[in-house]
Amino acid sequence: MARTKGYIRPLDFAGGRIEMTHGSGGKATAQLIDELFIAAFDNEWLRKGNDQAQLALPPGRVVMATDSHVVSPLFFPGGDIGALAVNGTVNDVAMAGARPLYLSAGFILEEGFPLADLRRIVESMARAAAAAGVAVVAGDTKVVERGKGDGLFINTTGIGVLRDGIEISAERARPTDAIIVSGALGEHGAAVLSARGPLGFESTIESDTCALHGLVAAMVDAVPDIHCLRDPTRGGLATALNELAWASGVGMNLMEASIPIPPEVSAACELFGFDPLYLANEGKLLAICPKAQAPVLLDAMRAHPLGGQSAIIGEVVADPLCFVQMTTRLGGQRHVDWRRGDQLPRIC
Amino acid sequence: MARTKGYIRPLDFAGGRIEMTHGSGGKATAQLIDELFIAAFDNEWLRKGNDQAQLALPPGRVVMATDSHVVSPLFFPGGDIGALAVNGTVNDVAMAGARPLYLSAGFILEEGFPLADLRRIVESMARAAAAAGVAVVAGDTKVVERGKGDGLFINTTGIGVLRDGIEISAERARPTDAIIVSGALGEHGAAVLSARGPLGFESTIESDTCALHGLVAAMVDAVPDIHCLRDPTRGGLATALNELAWASGVGMNLMEASIPIPPEVSAACELFGFDPLYLANEGKLLAICPKAQAPVLLDAMRAHPLGGQSAIIGEVVADPLCFVQMTTRLGGQRHVDWRRGDQLPRIC
Repeated sequence: MARTKGYIRPLDFAGGRIEMTHGSGGKATAQLIDELFIAAFDNEWLRKGNDQAQLALPPGRVVMATDSHVVSPLFFPGGDIGALAVNGTVNDVAMAGARPLYLSAGFILEEGFPLADLRRIVESMARAAAAAGVAVVAGDTKVVERGKGDGLFINTTGIGVLRDGIEISAERARPTDAIIVSGALGEHGAAVLSARGPLGFESTIESDTCALHGLVAAMVDAVPDIHCLRDPTRGGLATALNELAWASGVGMNLMEASIPIPPEVSAACELFGFDPLYLANEGKLLAICPKAQAPVLLDAMRAHPLGGQSAIIGEVVADPLCFVQMTTRLGGQRHVDWRRGDQLPRIC
Repeated sequence: MARTKGYIRPLDFAGGRIEMTHGSGGKATAQLIDELFIAAFDNEWLRKGNDQAQLALPPGRVVMATDSHVVSPLFFPGGDIGALAVNGTVNDVAMAGARPLYLSAGFILEEGFPLADLRRIVESMARAAAAAGVAVVAGDTKVVERGKGDGLFINTTGIGVLRDGIEISAERARPTDAIIVSGALGEHGAAVLSARGPLGFESTIESDTCALHGLVAAMVDAVPDIHCLRDPTRGGLATALNELAWASGVGMNLMEASIPIPPEVSAACELFGFDPLYLANEGKLLAICPKAQAPVLLDAMRAHPLGGQSAIIGEVVADPLCFVQMTTRLGGQRHVDWRRGDQLPRIC
């Protein structure tokens, strides 16, 4: 095409930095959208240049989820804020049993942020979206002055479609239901911890960030009557279980010996005084289903590449106080309560 | 209900402040969600306590739009960041000709932000959402350390539904089409300017922030073949017209004498050296439609409470360079180009 918007020169992805004008809505914003976002997320919706996307969805209920991402540092072993922002929202949509289809992406950039880092993050988002089979169809870019942000923050909001017959929701846990996790816990939290400068420790642990909708699809095919699904991200397994217990008005009993924790995660927790039950995960899920169907569900999960280490870790019980309790390896009982404080801020 | 999550005491909305633990995903986060967000946005989706909402949409194409809001200051004459965040995204969805239905809201809070201000903003969002007939069905809250944010940022993402027969899109402007605006320009930009401390000036101008979907519904009922709609927010009328000209591969000729600018906005622009054509609006829209249907569209717009001052301000012309030009009051020709820089950063 012979037309040109008259950019003076291409964006300098080697040494350039974000300036206030990149958030002005004028020519500099248009250039950033053209040369970075449309180039990376390339699809028919973004190319139209509208402030919204028109989507033809397959039949079914629409599922919507949103997450703002403020993880620090932006790059960590096994991932970065871009991959996390895509996978986190894909997973929130998937936890209804739905098929994620489309994402929006809203960027808040700090003046002075290196364009090289921004491109690396956006390209990571594009790879994660392609891997998850979702398109980034709508976007927004704002810029704040130096010292009024922290590099970049990314909001992603996702929509997907849920077929009939699936009713997965936080309030559906019932006494005698089985509690299953899809694999080893604590890797994302430990990986981010290892990436933090002064607190950092040497480790080979990588974040488990990945999209779980394929695993979920295999699970609902095997057992359509799954009661609850949740990805135990911020706050970890303990927080997710307390949320479900509360929403359903039930208690839970866990067996510590059944909960898979990698040795490196256990070691890091001992070193820093953390509890792995509260460490964030970005590629694991919790499922609650009728006890009779737990073996079938477990088989389906273990047959999937992302569920090889799946395990039954406990059961739902009647408890008007909605307590999550755990039988320890030594045979004692421990109350696995909500945390008031925070082990690791800005984990996602 | 006799159950309690065991909050030690209710949130202190008089003197309390955001702490890092409000973003931890633990008990403090749960309390903020219960006592502020669910209380304000009260609806069946949030009460379920899921990480996503399940929505039954009416038939039609689904429209999705996202906006992150970083306006400074947070409160300004005629509105605040909360109302702006709702209306801005409602309007982006409406500019496809769609009916907005649901919003998500993602908050990035700075440690130390007053809970009183947060409640005031959230309640303003709730009022704006109720006025626009949309429900806030999904949310997320993150907290960053003092000095790593600027009070709060809000992302809203909206979905709506578009009935058959409407094809409004940026690339549909054609030579001879009429260009119409729905009212006086520049009020939001001038109101935010007046609210900024050292640069502030005394003024009675208020932001025009409001939801435009009702006006849009009246417009598409009257003229289903509207070619383009856009709300001239960041970058103002000039930027919105350049975007549409570029997307459609056409030029535009404006008549300066027809463009409604309130005297107070003109005065502020003269004082500070701004150009009202680049000032942001948050409650106005631009429409482009076939010339023959312009009188009908104009009548429908003027009959609506939000379109009383609607006016035809120019026409689309053939121009391979996609220039937006204007015949000035003195009869001269002016090139209304994209801005490289920014008159007013953080306007929305």
